[in-house]
Amino acid sequence: MDIGFIGLGIMGRPMALHLQQAGHRILVPERASLPQEVRAVATVLPDAAAIAATAEAIILMVPDTPDVEAVLFGPRGVAAGLAPGKLVIDMSSISPTATKDFAARINALGCDYLDAPVSGGEVGAKQATLTIMVGGPQAAFERALPLFQAMGKNITLVGEANGAGQTCKVANQIVVALTIEAVGEALVFASKAGADPAKVRQALMGGLATSRILELHGERMITRSFNPGFRIALHQKDLNLALQSARELGVSLPNTAATQQLFSACVAAGGGGWDHSGLVQALEAMAAHRVA
Amino acid sequence: MDIGFIGLGIMGRPMALHLQQAGHRILVPERASLPQEVRAVATVLPDAAAIAATAEAIILMVPDTPDVEAVLFGPRGVAAGLAPGKLVIDMSSISPTATKDFAARINALGCDYLDAPVSGGEVGAKQATLTIMVGGPQAAFERALPLFQAMGKNITLVGEANGAGQTCKVANQIVVALTIEAVGEALVFASKAGADPAKVRQALMGGLATSRILELHGERMITRSFNPGFRIALHQKDLNLALQSARELGVSLPNTAATQQLFSACVAAGGGGWDHSGLVQALEAMAAHRVA
Repeated sequence: MDIGFIGLGIMGRPMALHLQQAGHRILVPERASLPQEVRAVATVLPDAAAIAATAEAIILMVPDTPDVEAVLFGPRGVAAGLAPGKLVIDMSSISPTATKDFAARINALGCDYLDAPVSGGEVGAKQATLTIMVGGPQAAFERALPLFQAMGKNITLVGEANGAGQTCKVANQIVVALTIEAVGEALVFASKAGADPAKVRQALMGGLATSRILELHGERMITRSFNPGFRIALHQKDLNLALQSARELGVSLPNTAATQQLFSACVAAGGGGWDHSGLVQALEAMAAHRVA
Repeated sequence: MDIGFIGLGIMGRPMALHLQQAGHRILVPERASLPQEVRAVATVLPDAAAIAATAEAIILMVPDTPDVEAVLFGPRGVAAGLAPGKLVIDMSSISPTATKDFAARINALGCDYLDAPVSGGEVGAKQATLTIMVGGPQAAFERALPLFQAMGKNITLVGEANGAGQTCKVANQIVVALTIEAVGEALVFASKAGADPAKVRQALMGGLATSRILELHGERMITRSFNPGFRIALHQKDLNLALQSARELGVSLPNTAATQQLFSACVAAGGGGWDHSGLVQALEAMAAHRVA
């Protein structure tokens, strides 16, 4: 299949290369920053409109809601090149409500739209083991499924309404952030009470407190390994999406709000680039105590 | 070994029976409520002092800090019957700081003291798969290890200072409560945004959000199975211990405090007897929306 791929950053680059290795022709927009490994195997076209005019499916993997809007509807954007029957897949993590609007505008051009954000980070992108959470019509999902299978493993059609994938991603980021915060509170408490946090983590593993976060991020807190990983500034963006959507929906998220404040404290301390496990340092500052 | 066992409730009864089945003689205090299955296999003595005078090790499994204090130091309590060289093991979940005091008073009588609270609930007690978190001297731990192995599986000497076991248990209860709350916020958000919470839970399993809580309690929230399990009133007691100890230590636990308020809201709604996954109903009330 001819696949347009827009957004060749840390995540997008390995994802596009997996699609190319699966036998697809990859079309990318010209820019000075285009990585050499992509340029070597992809077809380079002048802009997103040219890509949309040529490709059958167009995948977006860009940072935030305004970036998706600009790529889709800006000058020489995707919408300017679309013809009926094409498939637009936004794999960025953006606003669920804006997604519904973008999808409606793409549908009005006679094209399918899927929101398909991922989790699993750079490692998941490189190993093609991403979790992919999809919103959109069943038929469009089935059309895109071979592409998703080239990039990920745990692939779920969350709902047939657009936005369901983004909603699921927001839910994921809530659980991840709040579980990191939970492990942080527990380890700061235990450490300040005089217990060895490594022993506490070990004792908790295997019981009801077991989580991927306790395993990975609990260890990072103890070994002080705050190199990303997943940057606090990005998780702050995700919780901002959660809180903004929650306001629109009339949902109260008390611990998401408090955890966002702890991320803000980290950013204020110059920690926007820390791995999100570095959140523990905001709790440590409040207790004037370091876990390890 | 002759083992005194005080506190034959839902947890203590199966624990004592496992010790008896492992070949130990079990000594219990006389009371009208003594379960017949225990009376049939145990040696019944008039009170805790008589048990302490006869047994080599005395295990406590009672509800709260004042109960432990009364059993140990009340009239005809354990301390009144102890002679040097005996081993007192408190497997109740109580205050880490009170534990240090109780241990010092027992040590002053020439006896060893271990704090060894458990997690795993009634099922873990019945199946002898409890997680046991121990604080106290290495030698005392080794003396008690065969007893622990008859009752549990994941057995950790968290620290050689008394209170380390209780501190670890508090840390466990913080992580469990806050992870339940995290899953609750995520599912209420997703559901109110129009996504199917069962699909969202499925999409999240396997990724970074994976936890025992998402698996078990996430499902209970979706299927509305709020029969305990572990009662909110008990978890409220545990978070109270966490917050009280945190005040003493100078640790700030923002999400533990907020989650305790949600437990309080459940209790106010008549939900003290709900399983702790019922916490989601406090979040639902704030959003005027039910997950499923």
